[in-house]
Amino acid sequence: MPKRLAFIGLGIMGGPMAGHLLAAGHSLIVNTRTRARAAELLSRGARWADSPAATAAEADFIFTCVPDTPDVEAVVLGNNGILTSARNGMIVIDHSTISPAATRNMNEALRARGAILLDAPVSGGDTGAKNGTLSIMVGGDEGAFEQTRPLLGHMGKTITWCGPSGAGQLTKLVNQILVSVTNLAVSEGLTFARRSGLDEQKTLAAVSGGAAGSWQLSNLGPRMIAGDFKPGFMIKLQTKDLRLAIEAARQAGLELAALPLVNRLFEQAIREGRGNEGTQALFAVVDELAHRQSPPEG
Amino acid sequence: MPKRLAFIGLGIMGGPMAGHLLAAGHSLIVNTRTRARAAELLSRGARWADSPAATAAEADFIFTCVPDTPDVEAVVLGNNGILTSARNGMIVIDHSTISPAATRNMNEALRARGAILLDAPVSGGDTGAKNGTLSIMVGGDEGAFEQTRPLLGHMGKTITWCGPSGAGQLTKLVNQILVSVTNLAVSEGLTFARRSGLDEQKTLAAVSGGAAGSWQLSNLGPRMIAGDFKPGFMIKLQTKDLRLAIEAARQAGLELAALPLVNRLFEQAIREGRGNEGTQALFAVVDELAHRQSPPEG
Repeated sequence: MPKRLAFIGLGIMGGPMAGHLLAAGHSLIVNTRTRARAAELLSRGARWADSPAATAAEADFIFTCVPDTPDVEAVVLGNNGILTSARNGMIVIDHSTISPAATRNMNEALRARGAILLDAPVSGGDTGAKNGTLSIMVGGDEGAFEQTRPLLGHMGKTITWCGPSGAGQLTKLVNQILVSVTNLAVSEGLTFARRSGLDEQKTLAAVSGGAAGSWQLSNLGPRMIAGDFKPGFMIKLQTKDLRLAIEAARQAGLELAALPLVNRLFEQAIREGRGNEGTQALFAVVDELAHRQSPPEG
Repeated sequence: MPKRLAFIGLGIMGGPMAGHLLAAGHSLIVNTRTRARAAELLSRGARWADSPAATAAEADFIFTCVPDTPDVEAVVLGNNGILTSARNGMIVIDHSTISPAATRNMNEALRARGAILLDAPVSGGDTGAKNGTLSIMVGGDEGAFEQTRPLLGHMGKTITWCGPSGAGQLTKLVNQILVSVTNLAVSEGLTFARRSGLDEQKTLAAVSGGAAGSWQLSNLGPRMIAGDFKPGFMIKLQTKDLRLAIEAARQAGLELAALPLVNRLFEQAIREGRGNEGTQALFAVVDELAHRQSPPEG
């Protein structure tokens, strides 16, 4: 049976994700900050609503995909927010990457009205969104997850229930710690190779297939060497996620070392005007900082 | 035509490597610090010689595989070292992981007698040595490399000529920087997961397949979670290689950040008596240091 769906936030990720739900034959109501972004979906049969509250009013599943914690809070808790239309059985699925603690608070607020929030951040970038091959990490009520899973299947390939409310966001932050510190490994390894006079292509060929191998090395390594810093995932978005990870680590009483280090290096990248470059530009920052000194000998 | 080969250093790596050369039908002379280690090869037809000089005297290709820089220097430059038997056309292939600068010096010394040193450190561990599936990173004269390549093919699967003398060692150090900092990424990511209350198995399943993925995550992650610190590659050997990398970085005038950080953490592991554990025990050190503080809230 077609379900009544709503989607709020039709950006570079949300736009194609909403398109997959519409293509699957579901009724879809949409809302986004800039109405022009909805034009294509409206031409394909989606209906427009003027506020998050109006968008949620006639839908059973409300998907959100907006930039940051305050944006989700505005959509859920604000004037004309989803909460004002909340009712029994309504499920809100938030695809944004935001604070786990704020997620749990919003879930509590919705639960008080009989609704449920699932946190469902994604990885896989705009390519994954377009191709419906995202990884989706879900936290929140497991029964609501089971109800929602077939819909998530239109947008993602690897869909994992990670645990209670906030667990999806925490898992996404684990993902971002792994991605960033592995990126730092690749950046330092290739800086060492370049500045030791090695042929970087030969080095990549020699080390990529074994215990040193990673997605970051195979996918970003060649772009680092070529100086191709066109964005896959932008540095300014990576630093947003790292700030969330640092905040969550602090709340868990954890003092980490590599996470703050890589965060400082990305902040340096932003000061250098690299915020809109891809995360592989970390290599340029690491390389530049590493040989600021002149060689002590020879 | 069978070649006259020699192998010096029959440890956990050198023993099985020499065995592959013997099995391929070559004449083999051997020498190692503890003669009992040669017993199996001698029973299969290898001949014993009492010193590196005597071992090298009748061979065209002399392979060495010993623990550290001073050990290779003793074997090559010492009293009764290979250098005293050096002659035109002799090729010495050093499989040890040692200083690139010391490698270049020994190559110069051998070149003065018409012989050639190839640096050919390996990765792939004792399993790779036993199965003949090592990665071999070779530096030195390219013609000598081409002559030696068929012999290396008995011991390794991925055989890369990396550049002039020392380039094999430098490439191995790049490999070790990548391996160690990626290990740190996995250790911090899983510490964050555990101390945030996530189910670690679910977390691994959710993140391993995407941009966060690495050999370290897939192979060491499950052992970290299980608290299984049995050695694949021992921490005390990893720190030896990291010291070589730090020294080589200094000689190249480089100031890196993640390499010294992970080196300090491995040194902490050794202070805790973990030197004979596998490198995945870095997780235990990172986890312990991270939550030394008590949570500031809640």
